[in-house]
Amino acid sequence: MLLSTLNVMAQVNGSRQTGSQVIKKGMIKVTILYPGGEGKKFDMDYYTNKHFPLLKTLFGDALKATAIDKGIAGGAPGAPVSFVAIGYLYFDTLADFQNGMKTNGTKIRADIPNYTDITPVIQISEVVQ
Amino acid sequence: MLLSTLNVMAQVNGSRQTGSQVIKKGMIKVTILYPGGEGKKFDMDYYTNKHFPLLKTLFGDALKATAIDKGIAGGAPGAPVSFVAIGYLYFDTLADFQNGMKTNGTKIRADIPNYTDITPVIQISEVVQ
Repeated sequence: MLLSTLNVMAQVNGSRQTGSQVIKKGMIKVTILYPGGEGKKFDMDYYTNKHFPLLKTLFGDALKATAIDKGIAGGAPGAPVSFVAIGYLYFDTLADFQNGMKTNGTKIRADIPNYTDITPVIQISEVVQ
Repeated sequence: MLLSTLNVMAQVNGSRQTGSQVIKKGMIKVTILYPGGEGKKFDMDYYTNKHFPLLKTLFGDALKATAIDKGIAGGAPGAPVSFVAIGYLYFDTLADFQNGMKTNGTKIRADIPNYTDITPVIQISEVVQ
């Protein structure tokens, strides 16, 4: 009953919810985009089942929510996919992300070759809606 | 009570929820990325308060959820932002998006100059997580 009350509260505030993860307007969203290309490799299974759990362990409670997209097509019919994968990390503040990277950046970067040879594009955004 | 019951069900299935919008693994996510650049304009207020409501009206019930990000920084300290804005549209199937574009694409494209002179990058993804 407490759980369902919390859910209704989240709705009233216009937030988005996944499990115990809550996404709200104003949060910091770190988007990691992996551009496609001839001969590039990306192991979605490792990314989902090993890399993201590692991120959750390293960032701890500061990491409020995550999401993963698999690219399937470009916008126009027959257009190649721009990004083979996009990962999303949500934090309450930019400092939460930056402090986490200061402590764990080396470990995170060391895991990247285990699933891809693509250099990702990093975007830091604010959740508007 | 029905509402809170539905929320708990959504949690159990690992879906994400915003208002009456439900995001689930396997959904189609159309991502519209607006690259930044010298002298480029982007009216976030119009995008949020006019363009997205227009999309909701035109796509109707087929549009299951939406989100908007405002780019604030690149990954490295001092790096320029890759995208000034990113919009997200969620559909149950690729056909739902394609059919909506067939019917409404002209109206949607006609509204773009009202908020930006940037040519967006369109990415079609599948929600993995």
